[in-house]
Amino acid sequence: MGVEIERKFLIDETKLPTLQNGYTIKQGYIQTIDHTTVRIRVRGQEAFLTIKGKSQGATRLEFEYPISLNDAEEMLTNLCHASHVEKTRYLVEYEGHTWEVDIFEGSNKGLMIAEIELKSEDEAFPLPEWVTKEVTEDVRYFNANLVERPYTSW
Amino acid sequence: MGVEIERKFLIDETKLPTLQNGYTIKQGYIQTIDHTTVRIRVRGQEAFLTIKGKSQGATRLEFEYPISLNDAEEMLTNLCHASHVEKTRYLVEYEGHTWEVDIFEGSNKGLMIAEIELKSEDEAFPLPEWVTKEVTEDVRYFNANLVERPYTSW
Repeated sequence: MGVEIERKFLIDETKLPTLQNGYTIKQGYIQTIDHTTVRIRVRGQEAFLTIKGKSQGATRLEFEYPISLNDAEEMLTNLCHASHVEKTRYLVEYEGHTWEVDIFEGSNKGLMIAEIELKSEDEAFPLPEWVTKEVTEDVRYFNANLVERPYTSW
Repeated sequence: MGVEIERKFLIDETKLPTLQNGYTIKQGYIQTIDHTTVRIRVRGQEAFLTIKGKSQGATRLEFEYPISLNDAEEMLTNLCHASHVEKTRYLVEYEGHTWEVDIFEGSNKGLMIAEIELKSEDEAFPLPEWVTKEVTEDVRYFNANLVERPYTSW
């Protein structure tokens, strides 16, 4: 399918604009080795199966397929790591770019991440005043790792 | 999607009828833990992504999605175990049931397996004279294991 180029930042909550029209995401992972991830995501009434390769910098191979909600729930219950990632996602426009702001819940409550998808690794983009440290390559923040080592356990 | 109930047998080659109209299958696996398998299969010009749960007797959860040939080749090359399973599959009718006869190639050359898909674990079916020992629960014959420990290495 293609390649995902994405950079991730922590957030200064006090500077964040008012968030609107969020949608909930619940996702789980089939446990793999070798840094390939197999993700089952439920987003409202939609569901997706997504396979991503090992990250190289901000870039990963990504293959995504829509699946039925029923399949997704069955896989989340029976085939994924017992713990899931739950978050609310808000889209925030900032100077011509769309940021995804994820507010985590459950065992990752307190964690907030801003992500921006890019067309190339060296694409320039203005940093909003509400983002702080970049964590793109910090594996602790990979959602696949947040099921096993959630933020509240750090 | 559903449940796969399948029984597997070894074959007495000398008693096998003439095989016709076989099609080649190439498949690889994203390496997982916990007995869930994530399979990428290319069958002629078609390709499928298949996720199966842990076997319980002859039964497994199974979720299968058609994907593009291009996605499949990319995943086989970049995300799967370096070794793939290659085989030719023949469909053989026997007293109202369709058997899949797989003749393995490459590092599994010499291995032949007959599989029958059932509607329930206790469904009765006549055994053709060309099948021998049942290997349904012998993990060495799981295709996902044949990439790491191929038949020619036994």
